[in-house]
Amino acid sequence: MSRRPTDLPTLVEGVSAGDVRAIARAITLVENRDPLAYELVRELYPQTGKAVVVGFTGPPGVGKSSLIACVIAHLRSEGKRVGVVTVDPSSPFSRGALLGDRIRLAEHFLDDGVFIRSMSTRGHLGGVSEATLQALLVLDAARMDVLLLETVGVGQSEVEVASLADTVLLVLQPGSGDSIQALKAGVMEIPDVIVINKSDHPAARTMRSEIRSVLALDPSTARRVPIVETEAFRSEGIAELWEAVVEHRTHLEKHGQLDARRRESIEHEIVAVAVAQARRRLSEALERDPELRRLLDQVHERKVDPLTATREISERVFKGDDAGS
Amino acid sequence: MSRRPTDLPTLVEGVSAGDVRAIARAITLVENRDPLAYELVRELYPQTGKAVVVGFTGPPGVGKSSLIACVIAHLRSEGKRVGVVTVDPSSPFSRGALLGDRIRLAEHFLDDGVFIRSMSTRGHLGGVSEATLQALLVLDAARMDVLLLETVGVGQSEVEVASLADTVLLVLQPGSGDSIQALKAGVMEIPDVIVINKSDHPAARTMRSEIRSVLALDPSTARRVPIVETEAFRSEGIAELWEAVVEHRTHLEKHGQLDARRRESIEHEIVAVAVAQARRRLSEALERDPELRRLLDQVHERKVDPLTATREISERVFKGDDAGS
Repeated sequence: MSRRPTDLPTLVEGVSAGDVRAIARAITLVENRDPLAYELVRELYPQTGKAVVVGFTGPPGVGKSSLIACVIAHLRSEGKRVGVVTVDPSSPFSRGALLGDRIRLAEHFLDDGVFIRSMSTRGHLGGVSEATLQALLVLDAARMDVLLLETVGVGQSEVEVASLADTVLLVLQPGSGDSIQALKAGVMEIPDVIVINKSDHPAARTMRSEIRSVLALDPSTARRVPIVETEAFRSEGIAELWEAVVEHRTHLEKHGQLDARRRESIEHEIVAVAVAQARRRLSEALERDPELRRLLDQVHERKVDPLTATREISERVFKGDDAGS
Repeated sequence: MSRRPTDLPTLVEGVSAGDVRAIARAITLVENRDPLAYELVRELYPQTGKAVVVGFTGPPGVGKSSLIACVIAHLRSEGKRVGVVTVDPSSPFSRGALLGDRIRLAEHFLDDGVFIRSMSTRGHLGGVSEATLQALLVLDAARMDVLLLETVGVGQSEVEVASLADTVLLVLQPGSGDSIQALKAGVMEIPDVIVINKSDHPAARTMRSEIRSVLALDPSTARRVPIVETEAFRSEGIAELWEAVVEHRTHLEKHGQLDARRRESIEHEIVAVAVAQARRRLSEALERDPELRRLLDQVHERKVDPLTATREISERVFKGDDAGS
């Protein structure tokens, strides 16, 4: 413990210098919601905004993590420093299964050139937005060139996290029928790049044309969304994938959209974090405040209606002296 | 307009008597967030809690709406009064495509025996929890025997809405690979009943065994989750589906779990509504408050860090005089 940098100036210096131990310590503070993490990110924030942030979204099991491992290797071969944050509880990164990849990468390249961290999701995805935002800012301040953010799902909650990215990739595989239906129904947002992984699967070609026809439904898509085929197991299509990311970014910059997108992202993110904090305060208050528990009893007994209870609870939690965290 | 019941006592009386026009008016008030809706639900609340509430979740395109149409017919044949609320923007109910079914049903049965309403989701699913809760309470007070709630997605947000149900059905179809992966990864909660629709598809059998093996991964599932096969197009398997719902409910009642589940649901729902309200207040304040817009500018210019901004915004929105709605 004594070797770990624990005071603010040392941490700021360490992270800014890209020191792996300082980065690890900083992200642990972030995860533990330590007040020091807040101070640290505040100090580091002016140095951030330089990294390219790429989001990998998609249902579990399509190979997002393997794909990320391939992209890391590709970026390292270009000498780029890469930070990875995963908020996918089912990710092999979270389970440590890909640790071997990390070690192999670490052996081949500079020790401090890759930093991978999985965020614990603690029940509800919403609660992770704050920690994810801070972790990305720490890695950005640590002069990582590229940040890869892995999220899971076919819905809305993961899009919230992915909104932090400059470019959002949706990774699918043959058999991802539900995701295609979700895109078709407009329930899922159209990403910037679509990746079909496991492209050697016999159904990959059918899937490509299915996706094409879904995308064709929305003529307002100004920029044609590229579909890239990859085979992470054999590291195929990775250069093409990265090229699509670079092209999207170039497109954003050329049309002056990167700035607007980041402005929108940060606003979206601030709302997400404030909402997550509100949720936490509500849940904590309902757990420990006997008065609120009594109110819930009355709702259950049909003596007080749910909306009146909601009003009273919000009033007490948000306006009261219960400043909480 | 003059014929519509608009005063509170008339509305309470009309809804309690199951008058279709009063119900329709009440739910419109709910959707418009009219203060009268709040009064109305408060008045009606003591009469609620009698209806059986069944949630239909699942990705778009699997046939949830057609299945619901079949279940309505089945329940009407038993003389049950049925209310349907859909919060799926891609639902044929929302698009009016199934209006024909409704009219046909209405011709065959009592006029006021079925009431179908789709809730507009207005961007974010979270915002719909309040209106959905109120609509269900109105229909419950209107002495509907069964309430069917249709939600969409493969993720977390729709589960929030579905938590209002006593029994949650997950509807899948052959090709729903992403949902199966989500169940397997523990990203999606295990439902009470799984329905494979389009059971005449050649891959239906494979899917059944896939689901079985996924369910087998979790030995803690005390009650074996039934898998029901249906073919909504030909109204096949509907009686079996309903039987599985009834069995689940009987199981809950027999083990004294229905009460506990409803208690948990209402707590969960109150948090969801409070969070949705907090989100709305934050978004509205960020839109119209020039001071907050300036703060966002400063974050964008890297002069103020996002978490400091979040604190200031939450403080101003929740603690200020900005009582809002």
